[in-house]
Amino acid sequence: MALAAVCPRRARPRRDRSNLVTVARDERGVTPQSEDFSAWYNELVLKAELVDRGPVRGTMVIRPYGYRIWELLQSELDRRIKETGHQNAYFPLLIPQSYLEREAEHVEGFAPELAVVTHAGGKQLEEPLIIRPTSETVIGEFMAKWISSHRDLPMLLNQWANVVRWELRPRLLLRTTEFLWQEGHTAHADEADAMRETMLALQEIYAPTVRGLAAIPVIEGEKTPGERFAGAVSTFTIEAMMRDGRALQSGTSHYMGTNFARSFDIQYTGEDGQLRYAYTTSWGLSTRLIGGVIMTHGDDKGLVLPPRLAPYQVVIVPIGRGDQAAEVTEAASALAGRLVAAGIRTHMDDRPQLSPGFKFNEWELRGVPIRLELGPRDLAAGSAVMALRLGGAKEPIGLDGAPARLADELDAFQDFLFDRATAFRDEHTVTTDDWADFVVAVATGWARALHCGMQDCEDEIKAATGATARCIPLDGEPASGPCIRCGRPSAYGKRVIFGRAY
Amino acid sequence: MALAAVCPRRARPRRDRSNLVTVARDERGVTPQSEDFSAWYNELVLKAELVDRGPVRGTMVIRPYGYRIWELLQSELDRRIKETGHQNAYFPLLIPQSYLEREAEHVEGFAPELAVVTHAGGKQLEEPLIIRPTSETVIGEFMAKWISSHRDLPMLLNQWANVVRWELRPRLLLRTTEFLWQEGHTAHADEADAMRETMLALQEIYAPTVRGLAAIPVIEGEKTPGERFAGAVSTFTIEAMMRDGRALQSGTSHYMGTNFARSFDIQYTGEDGQLRYAYTTSWGLSTRLIGGVIMTHGDDKGLVLPPRLAPYQVVIVPIGRGDQAAEVTEAASALAGRLVAAGIRTHMDDRPQLSPGFKFNEWELRGVPIRLELGPRDLAAGSAVMALRLGGAKEPIGLDGAPARLADELDAFQDFLFDRATAFRDEHTVTTDDWADFVVAVATGWARALHCGMQDCEDEIKAATGATARCIPLDGEPASGPCIRCGRPSAYGKRVIFGRAY
Repeated sequence: MALAAVCPRRARPRRDRSNLVTVARDERGVTPQSEDFSAWYNELVLKAELVDRGPVRGTMVIRPYGYRIWELLQSELDRRIKETGHQNAYFPLLIPQSYLEREAEHVEGFAPELAVVTHAGGKQLEEPLIIRPTSETVIGEFMAKWISSHRDLPMLLNQWANVVRWELRPRLLLRTTEFLWQEGHTAHADEADAMRETMLALQEIYAPTVRGLAAIPVIEGEKTPGERFAGAVSTFTIEAMMRDGRALQSGTSHYMGTNFARSFDIQYTGEDGQLRYAYTTSWGLSTRLIGGVIMTHGDDKGLVLPPRLAPYQVVIVPIGRGDQAAEVTEAASALAGRLVAAGIRTHMDDRPQLSPGFKFNEWELRGVPIRLELGPRDLAAGSAVMALRLGGAKEPIGLDGAPARLADELDAFQDFLFDRATAFRDEHTVTTDDWADFVVAVATGWARALHCGMQDCEDEIKAATGATARCIPLDGEPASGPCIRCGRPSAYGKRVIFGRAY
Repeated sequence: MALAAVCPRRARPRRDRSNLVTVARDERGVTPQSEDFSAWYNELVLKAELVDRGPVRGTMVIRPYGYRIWELLQSELDRRIKETGHQNAYFPLLIPQSYLEREAEHVEGFAPELAVVTHAGGKQLEEPLIIRPTSETVIGEFMAKWISSHRDLPMLLNQWANVVRWELRPRLLLRTTEFLWQEGHTAHADEADAMRETMLALQEIYAPTVRGLAAIPVIEGEKTPGERFAGAVSTFTIEAMMRDGRALQSGTSHYMGTNFARSFDIQYTGEDGQLRYAYTTSWGLSTRLIGGVIMTHGDDKGLVLPPRLAPYQVVIVPIGRGDQAAEVTEAASALAGRLVAAGIRTHMDDRPQLSPGFKFNEWELRGVPIRLELGPRDLAAGSAVMALRLGGAKEPIGLDGAPARLADELDAFQDFLFDRATAFRDEHTVTTDDWADFVVAVATGWARALHCGMQDCEDEIKAATGATARCIPLDGEPASGPCIRCGRPSAYGKRVIFGRAY
């Protein structure tokens, strides 16, 4: 409706305005973030019309406003994926149960979450089929078929797909029974090339997209053994801090070594004529990132969308009654057209039955970066009133220079959000060697601490504080000493980030 | 690999060339189309690396070369879908069985093809879940929730998704158990607006995309009652003729009246305060269209891809041995870079282990519109040898003007394919009032005939000839008289196209 809405509509009978504004506050407001973060999130994703609950427990409908955010993310990810030599393909949704069983750790990790098709075409199936929870197995099967020589390597594939994982504690966008993602799957001649690919996905595809578009200052790091992907030799992650201090794993990249190659017989003949196993990787980023955007930037009033991911970067609200309405609407429509032509995603909200105040609240709740108000007096002065979603009083801007001015404001807003989130993350991250400090730190943010690397110790920390090892940051300074919890010698040669996680 | 392949690689040990060429013919050739159309198709889709057979019967893997064709189609369809005011959204894969049962005709039509999830998360589900065969039901449920006032209409949604229909006679790309498509779903205040939408999808989205990109001269028409979508009031189609004379339904648009609105309670309050049912439509176009491209343009040598859908529009084969190899490869690489910069999808095939003859055969089989050969003598003359996939001898073209010249050739090739397919269709379509002529016509193409409109008569025609009513063309001239089969008075006021169909 974005562009269609640019066209003026016939005026319709107007209801009592004060009443409407009251309705607006009751129906559209959300529990303040500062009061109850969880209630704020759950209400907001519905009221901002990002998503709706699906008919089956744990599923969701992604509504146009939420889906547009996903499309904007997709577009940049897909560009980077192709630019780095990957090709898109599509593999089947339904996987024979026997495929999953070939990689022992993999099936153990995913078995509790599987959805199983037992009947199709009116008959019971001979072998039950799994709805893919991820596609390493079926893609491994085809890599084995397609790869025979070193000349077939590297094989660099990606697929955009839906996957199903039966979640015990579903949460809209963050942990849904079905979600959308891309999954990269690659095969290489040797460990060095596979490891280079694993880092490329993390550092050249994910991190710059999430920082640049979502304005989320993610930390790049490696997972500890207990947090690895089922079947991986090592797992890398980008971790983000939400405004309640919790961590959100926002994208992961896995180095599989020859684990899947051995299970699926992905072998190639080297230049020397010898048969060898390939080294594989996989990496994924999903619709959960939209949840990360909400929880990184949102506030008591609702969403705050980074301009580069905002379905509407600017909303124009024409304000005029009676005879002036047509003139103002026409001018607003012309302005919208100029902004669209300048590449600014613009929406004109000319719904006649709603008051300006209602619209202001609604677009604040829905996180539009910039609102322009245009009334008869503004029009006479050749200006519009600009209100930023965050910070600052309203300000008149000239209509003539509006496209260039707004483009600058949007850039500045994007940078502001990134800087604010970075400052928040740093303020809520404590480097400590003291258990009492650690406990306090992970109650409201992250702790950088030394750890022994043992699973039983990680489990104890989780039981005591709710915090888990989020990652060993790639850029961490060398550090060693006694483990924050058990006092045994530290592992990894650097500090580990701990925090409670989504 | 398209752009990565532009970079020269180190030469590798070369095998005996004559032997390789022999292998090439054996391994890569396909049964000629003129000998056995069906065998030609089945071999070609695999050997051209468009698709592979999935592990589950009737499923397919869409390989990068095939998926790129889908992406190019998607991109144009999505542009037109958005330009006409629709918004993308995403609805759940899994649908409660009870939803499907609400629309009686709909469930009857789809029941035999359903895949059913009975277990998930390690437990038996209370209600079995259906993997969507199409999404009218689940989207209807949410339209009912989101629509309350006339101001919420029209609601114009689209989704890109996978669907599952358990096919008895699967065929790669044409009829697969899982396929990819877009499905538009819209709700309107009245019949006129819904009917306008139904025709818009057919005539402003599907027909121009399929004609313009796929170079397929589709006929727009309405389906006879027996061929309607399960639950629709009327179904419209674009029908294409394949090179074996059979018809391929290439996209459909359905007017549902209030059938689904009544089943799912999609009601709105009109301007007069009265509660009314909305009128809905749905329309879909799928990966089956890739099969249509293959069967409309392909020939004995393999695929012939219309330039606007070709993953590679131009392939450059450098030809040089020994000392000259590096120089030729460098020049080919520079040329590829210039073509890419001019917006031409270009691939340089510098695989050192393969002979030029092998490459020529391979790219002919894979349907690349233009091949450029570049050898030392060409390079010295400042030219390359151009070979079109269809028609004409090889011809030298100057390297300087290559980008502009090739862009022209690609446009001409696109037009040529459309014109050739139009001529083929017209030559294989017979207007007749004689049953014997009709029988001959539908054995190799289509017949335009008068029909009584009765289902029993359509069934008899199918039993006798294998042909079905493909559509009542929208642009058909007024015509009436006795039915071609039974002699009863004709229906529809115009002729019906009959043909055997995929």
